[in-house]
Amino acid sequence: MTHFDAKALARGPARWSHPMQARFQDIDAAGIVFYPRFFEYFHDAYVAFLDGRGCELHRAIAERRWAAPLKHVEADYLRPLRFGDRFAVGLVGVVITGSDVDVGYQVARPDGEVVAVGRTVHVWVDAQRFRRLAALPEDVRAALDPLVVSERGAPT
Amino acid sequence: MTHFDAKALARGPARWSHPMQARFQDIDAAGIVFYPRFFEYFHDAYVAFLDGRGCELHRAIAERRWAAPLKHVEADYLRPLRFGDRFAVGLVGVVITGSDVDVGYQVARPDGEVVAVGRTVHVWVDAQRFRRLAALPEDVRAALDPLVVSERGAPT
Amino acid sequence: MTHFDAKALARGPARWSHPMQARFQDIDAAGIVFYPRFFEYFHDAYVAFLDGRGCELHRAIAERRWAAPLKHVEADYLRPLRFGDRFAVGLVGVVITGSDVDVGYQVARPDGEVVAVGRTVHVWVDAQRFRRLAALPEDVRAALDPLVVSERGAPT
Amino acid sequence: MTHFDAKALARGPARWSHPMQARFQDIDAAGIVFYPRFFEYFHDAYVAFLDGRGCELHRAIAERRWAAPLKHVEADYLRPLRFGDRFAVGLVGVVITGSDVDVGYQVARPDGEVVAVGRTVHVWVDAQRFRRLAALPEDVRAALDPLVVSERGAPT
Repeated sequence: MTHFDAKALARGPARWSHPMQARFQDIDAAGIVFYPRFFEYFHDAYVAFLDGRGCELHRAIAERRWAAPLKHVEADYLRPLRFGDRFAVGLVGVVITGSDVDVGYQVARPDGEVVAVGRTVHVWVDAQRFRRLAALPEDVRAALDPLVVSERGAPT
Repeated sequence: MTHFDAKALARGPARWSHPMQARFQDIDAAGIVFYPRFFEYFHDAYVAFLDGRGCELHRAIAERRWAAPLKHVEADYLRPLRFGDRFAVGLVGVVITGSDVDVGYQVARPDGEVVAVGRTVHVWVDAQRFRRLAALPEDVRAALDPLVVSERGAPT
Repeated sequence: MTHFDAKALARGPARWSHPMQARFQDIDAAGIVFYPRFFEYFHDAYVAFLDGRGCELHRAIAERRWAAPLKHVEADYLRPLRFGDRFAVGLVGVVITGSDVDVGYQVARPDGEVVAVGRTVHVWVDAQRFRRLAALPEDVRAALDPLVVSERGAPT
Repeated sequence: MTHFDAKALARGPARWSHPMQARFQDIDAAGIVFYPRFFEYFHDAYVAFLDGRGCELHRAIAERRWAAPLKHVEADYLRPLRFGDRFAVGLVGVVITGSDVDVGYQVARPDGEVVAVGRTVHVWVDAQRFRRLAALPEDVRAALDPLVVSERGAPT
């Protein structure tokens, strides 16, 4: 699975892209976007993608159908972002392994310069006891379809 | 009810005090603590006070006994705080009106300089439907005891 | 100055409006938007308004021209917001008094239901020493023009 | 460099430990600590460690001596944290490579159960232009001393 190493993510291309702007309150005492905010940007983009595909996380949670907590995340930072900087969070692809979904991200300025890349590996669980589901819910799988670069059943 | 105007809050004294320090990520693009963070500091102090009195908000929520959302808040800012600045959030007092609790705060540096004051007016509600309780739960009323400066039944 | 009491703000109307959506991470342990996040929404709307009028806060700060810290803020909460809820932050008007700018806000759902109102009183200062300017910078005054409901010189 | 894979971090032990508690506002719409908050916890612990060793990040930034932005971060999540949960962020060790510092973290409950592990790789830069320093400032190197598990010059 070499798709989601940092170099591959930096090359992209993104299959879907979410334009954003660094907020006044995202800045830290060193004058740049505080590094965990990039994971908030990743999450906002992931939620917006699912919403746009008719698979709304807020509805899934309100109806206690499922949740998708993280098992692993990582990010590489290439350039700082500052207040007011415009950028897009691109979804480069997803790798599905049973009920695990590994999402690859690329953060780029409007001129294409990549400022950060990252991955978030979600596990689909029931919303009550947070127990792993045997497979992705069908509507989630369908929503992710345009992003899937690789797919396997659950690890044995 | 003149206790909780800004001038009275600035005079204090605080009846209970919670030492804190401005975090790296509390700073905004102008280089000072982002103003809504003071409400986070107020809330942290209020939670810590209740915890110390054996009335834990996290337990009340987990057991779905009650919640205490806000109906009104305000703050006056006298001096900026910067990264690493030490300060204490003082609880100046509470005014109870039925199931409303009006909490007064004073934020002061170790040398006593007041940098901000504020109020938060909470309404005690049931945790399921967020409907106002007729009166404060007994354990909450007992926990608040050292802070009470005025108390009345519900407005009629 | 009765324009910006809570009832007047709830009546509105907003002169300018910024559509937003409650984020996953804006929710607190009680399951609703954490109350200080409303001030973040206010600030995002205020920044977006100024940006749209060609008066970019990030540029003013980067060029060390001015900053606009808060001297007073307040909010009244009428209904909770939950994850995924759509709303608009409306700017109801501004009152200018010398270099103080009092901004009135109304947060409403798409069906018009008002969920919160608030005020933020900014002071325009130089960006280096945070000393009050004698008057608003001309470009700021021009940018605010569509919102001005009252204007006076500095208090004497 | 096998010290900082997730399994080694989970085994620990921590060389220094920072007790914390999950805040009301750290919770997300799924009812658990929002995953990027763990990086805030890591950062708080790292700042507290340096402070305790007489190497205060806020002073370094105020004096424009250096900054330490991130080049890479990652985390593995083993168990969720909920509002009010107590935990400690342990620093398991640092690996120094020139002006890069790779910090390993372990988040554990009071009973020792590990709930998350992570790494943050900082680059020491000058505070003005964010250019990499040839080596760590002496006071930083001295402060980190109790944590160092491996050390090399800059990569060639």
